[in-house]
Amino acid sequence: MDIFALSGDKKRVLILGGGFGGIEIARRLDTRKYEVLLIDKHNYFTFQPLLYQVATGGLEPDSVAYPLRKILSKNNKVLFRLAEVQKIDAANSKVITTIGELPYDKLVLATGATTNFFNMTETEKSALSLKSVTDALNIRSFVLQKFEAALLVNSIEEQKRMMNFVIVGGGPTGVEISGALAELKRHVLPCDYPELDIKMMNISILESGENVLDAMSDYAKRKAKKQLEEMGVNLLMKKQLKSFNGHEAVLADGTVIETSSLIWTAGVKGNFPEGFDATVVARGNRLIVDDTNHLVSNENIFAIGDVASMQSGAHPMVAPVAIQQAKNLAKNLNSQKPKGEWEKFVYVDKGSMATIGRSRAVADIKFIHMKGFFAWLAWLFIHLMLLVGFRNRVIVLFNWIWNYFSYDRAIRLIIRPYEKSEK
Amino acid sequence: MDIFALSGDKKRVLILGGGFGGIEIARRLDTRKYEVLLIDKHNYFTFQPLLYQVATGGLEPDSVAYPLRKILSKNNKVLFRLAEVQKIDAANSKVITTIGELPYDKLVLATGATTNFFNMTETEKSALSLKSVTDALNIRSFVLQKFEAALLVNSIEEQKRMMNFVIVGGGPTGVEISGALAELKRHVLPCDYPELDIKMMNISILESGENVLDAMSDYAKRKAKKQLEEMGVNLLMKKQLKSFNGHEAVLADGTVIETSSLIWTAGVKGNFPEGFDATVVARGNRLIVDDTNHLVSNENIFAIGDVASMQSGAHPMVAPVAIQQAKNLAKNLNSQKPKGEWEKFVYVDKGSMATIGRSRAVADIKFIHMKGFFAWLAWLFIHLMLLVGFRNRVIVLFNWIWNYFSYDRAIRLIIRPYEKSEK
Repeated sequence: MDIFALSGDKKRVLILGGGFGGIEIARRLDTRKYEVLLIDKHNYFTFQPLLYQVATGGLEPDSVAYPLRKILSKNNKVLFRLAEVQKIDAANSKVITTIGELPYDKLVLATGATTNFFNMTETEKSALSLKSVTDALNIRSFVLQKFEAALLVNSIEEQKRMMNFVIVGGGPTGVEISGALAELKRHVLPCDYPELDIKMMNISILESGENVLDAMSDYAKRKAKKQLEEMGVNLLMKKQLKSFNGHEAVLADGTVIETSSLIWTAGVKGNFPEGFDATVVARGNRLIVDDTNHLVSNENIFAIGDVASMQSGAHPMVAPVAIQQAKNLAKNLNSQKPKGEWEKFVYVDKGSMATIGRSRAVADIKFIHMKGFFAWLAWLFIHLMLLVGFRNRVIVLFNWIWNYFSYDRAIRLIIRPYEKSEK
Repeated sequence: MDIFALSGDKKRVLILGGGFGGIEIARRLDTRKYEVLLIDKHNYFTFQPLLYQVATGGLEPDSVAYPLRKILSKNNKVLFRLAEVQKIDAANSKVITTIGELPYDKLVLATGATTNFFNMTETEKSALSLKSVTDALNIRSFVLQKFEAALLVNSIEEQKRMMNFVIVGGGPTGVEISGALAELKRHVLPCDYPELDIKMMNISILESGENVLDAMSDYAKRKAKKQLEEMGVNLLMKKQLKSFNGHEAVLADGTVIETSSLIWTAGVKGNFPEGFDATVVARGNRLIVDDTNHLVSNENIFAIGDVASMQSGAHPMVAPVAIQQAKNLAKNLNSQKPKGEWEKFVYVDKGSMATIGRSRAVADIKFIHMKGFFAWLAWLFIHLMLLVGFRNRVIVLFNWIWNYFSYDRAIRLIIRPYEKSEK
């Protein structure tokens, strides 16, 4: 069945991926000028910045995800199909997917990033990661199951191992999940497990650099360190993980940490399907694009967001870059001008922030550096506004208020989703 | 590790199952008199009456479930363990579970009911059912995937089959899920799938009796029938399913219905572990108990709720029976009187109700019969009050208000949980 059957003589734009970049361009493309089709392997958009709260029982998965069809229905000529991409056949201008071959005139890769284990296969097998709703639910279940299991063993050593959580990577994700675990330790777990000595629970951040939040200002780094230490998180700086087998984490300096829970947040890499040769791939497995997000090797293929790396300088792999590139590309495509007249992409960095825990956060906004309660409020407000859908905003706001005043994280179901393809 | 290690000379009460009956008795037993342990294979209580709303995108699973540890922390001497029961060894007063052998002085079976396919193995393999959070998420994903799949086929016949939903059983669950699907058809799916002719979607209830809601008053039966018909649900009364293979439902009279989605709500049966012989099992696979919920064969074993069938007359398999039996049994156990002086269980039937759709419901409360908007409001109010936890109540209330005014069912993620046991 030709999905583009109705397109007549309009050019066909195929967008791969329904993340920040993909939905932004899909909403902005002029459907009077283009036939637009977006495909994704999920039927929902995931708001990744809040996944760590799903992983730690603070939010429902349904509040940080949003049906793609509902997002796209606002520009209701955009088509959506649930499909996985298998390969790109650029020579014949088509994409091979699980629902068949899809031809295109213009192809937009907005396929994002995936966890980078830097070829540490054993670690990859045993570590937890946090890039999807499924991952978040998996971490939530895993952490709770460790406490259930700790109740069943007699050895204090074994209990300590089960209650030892190592987070590799001191970036925002690592800091946020460590802070959230520290809050669980302080407020929730002692009530849930009165028979366990929760003081034995141990949370460490392992970071190869000198500081947590190394991309932020010196002020933010210093304050984040202080706040994490106040919350009882161990900061193991200038340490590198060598391997993790599910029971022991071995560091580069030979230290052995007894733990069964290691959360890997120390790296991401661009995620794109087969069909490109090594010459167009930059550092971090990202596709090399010019200043208008054209793939250097092909006039009709574009890459935006995490999967793209500009020749003139790679941008950080964060949502604002993806959104801004999507806007710029949509504008250029809508203009239908020749390539030479396209507007070049200029990144406007609006700053960065990370939340550390209850009333604790750090923020760099232009030349303003904030910490503590006001940074935390700013973080909450901005993330609330970025969420998709009014219903989700209300539910998240209510959960935050609830969590704040009750000191609770009420969403503690052990339940694991899996990907099942249906005929 | 002896879980009951701290019990000293108190009698040990072991409760199997954290449903309505199990949590009620766990909360009420006097922990100065008994050492109480509750085990369940999930770490959460499931509010089954609202599962159909999870299955149809109206509520998050986290709103209809609640962590058992949080429920039990109110009576904070009650122990909880996450475990599955394998066998009961009544001769030695112990239960064999996935976490080892658990000895008991008194054993309370509150293991509920499971779907009864009446030995129709092919149907069991292909049909959907609705008894757990996992089931509900599975139905939600299955239904949405049918529409995604319908977009990919050319044949109208095949599209019709994919959009044909057969619900077997005209009890409250069957009626409620049919009504909710009819609302999806009217308000949500036409926006999500503008390329499909949603008018082809077909919802039928197959019922072997003469009426839907056969256990309710004549008034309720009549009004439910009318309301369902107004909503476009086909009522196939006095029809019996013979078999379903995933593509065709064959009825006892030879009729063949082309469908790939059959939801089975036509029977439940008591669910109890191995270890009882046939002489103590009544109709519906329920354990025979006396008027004080003593198992007829054993002084120290009790059964309450769906899994119990009283010699003096079997009660309906509904939550109020389980709750009331739990209260009565807790009172008797707390009294520590000899068996002969125990208070007999008397069921107080507070009536029954079923919701059919937006502003549509029927209710029999004593001699009062209601329908329409007021019955619907009563239904909403009572279910809200029965929910466990203030947070859940607020979230459910907000979702209901949202669904009512937006005509939306926003929770449409295709995501499937699975049961994974962890070492």
